[in-house]
Amino acid sequence: MSRLYDYLDSGNGYKVRLLLSQLGLAYTRVDVDILVGASRTAEFLEKNLNGRIPVLELESGEYLPESNAILYYLADGTPFLPTERLARARVLQWMFFEQYSHEPNIATARFWLRHVEMDESQRALLEQKRRLGYAALAVMERHLAESGFFVGDTYTIADIALFAYTHVAPEGGFALNDFPAVCRWIERVRAQPGHLPMSDA
Amino acid sequence: MSRLYDYLDSGNGYKVRLLLSQLGLAYTRVDVDILVGASRTAEFLEKNLNGRIPVLELESGEYLPESNAILYYLADGTPFLPTERLARARVLQWMFFEQYSHEPNIATARFWLRHVEMDESQRALLEQKRRLGYAALAVMERHLAESGFFVGDTYTIADIALFAYTHVAPEGGFALNDFPAVCRWIERVRAQPGHLPMSDA
Repeated sequence: MSRLYDYLDSGNGYKVRLLLSQLGLAYTRVDVDILVGASRTAEFLEKNLNGRIPVLELESGEYLPESNAILYYLADGTPFLPTERLARARVLQWMFFEQYSHEPNIATARFWLRHVEMDESQRALLEQKRRLGYAALAVMERHLAESGFFVGDTYTIADIALFAYTHVAPEGGFALNDFPAVCRWIERVRAQPGHLPMSDA
Repeated sequence: MSRLYDYLDSGNGYKVRLLLSQLGLAYTRVDVDILVGASRTAEFLEKNLNGRIPVLELESGEYLPESNAILYYLADGTPFLPTERLARARVLQWMFFEQYSHEPNIATARFWLRHVEMDESQRALLEQKRRLGYAALAVMERHLAESGFFVGDTYTIADIALFAYTHVAPEGGFALNDFPAVCRWIERVRAQPGHLPMSDA
């Protein structure tokens, strides 16, 4: 059975849990308390040199880090990842958007508000993250106004990747009222078979 | 013929130019002056809602943004992207590492130093980017100490993605002296057939 090194409040960990649930794959979850540095120990760095969760330990004993690479690996050969060349690249397009333009703003703002005693420079940076996070939500809104899911009309790992931190964006101080297409998409994602709430494991 | 919306000093644009050169694919390069906001015009947002270069316009007229998604699309079916499931996921692992842990620190520091009159908050942030950028280089160094390229012993789009901003990291104030394995890898990448320097187009 594979093993997932994970932290329950992490959206990046949640992405993988959600897909594993929807694929009906059994796994062992190993809790890594990132708040006390458990992902930066020498032992953990053997699993991921970059010192971050999630990491998937395959049955072969090999370790795969980076949430979106894990999603790709698990979804390959399933309906969650299209096979057509351009559709597959579009799934990745939105997953790179997620890691570059969305997560560093929306997830980081949420993490600081929930887990960190912010200093002055973080409070100043929070304003910038608010602005860039809203810009990412606006990109999603414009796209979803014309499309049921991120790539065509099917639920893929692009939706899973973007759902993880979007549906808890209010916990990072982002109001979703001005993004009706995003809100409708959140409900469509929640209605998918095998859906798992973030707090479940 | 496909068309690449590009900015010559962008490493993200260079990734695509380099792969197109190594694939021997002809294309038209369209210069977009990001310094005067040319990637944020209404016309450009039709090509990429997220207002960034590079964007590849396919022969079909469709637009594909996100440098690493473009690399994936172009490399699919070529020796630059392995077909084995885990190897392919590892290529993506390093490309997500590049966009999350490397580019926002090393490329942004370089961009600010070259193109921006920094204000006080950017100067303060530059220190953080320096620290996180060196951490990313240290991850690369530890990996490359045991591996000729990022995924196995073959040159792939993971190497192209990471080469783009690593080989010009000194322009962002990063000294590469303490990273001998990274320096040897840079030379290996430069020695690949069809290699193209960043300033060429």
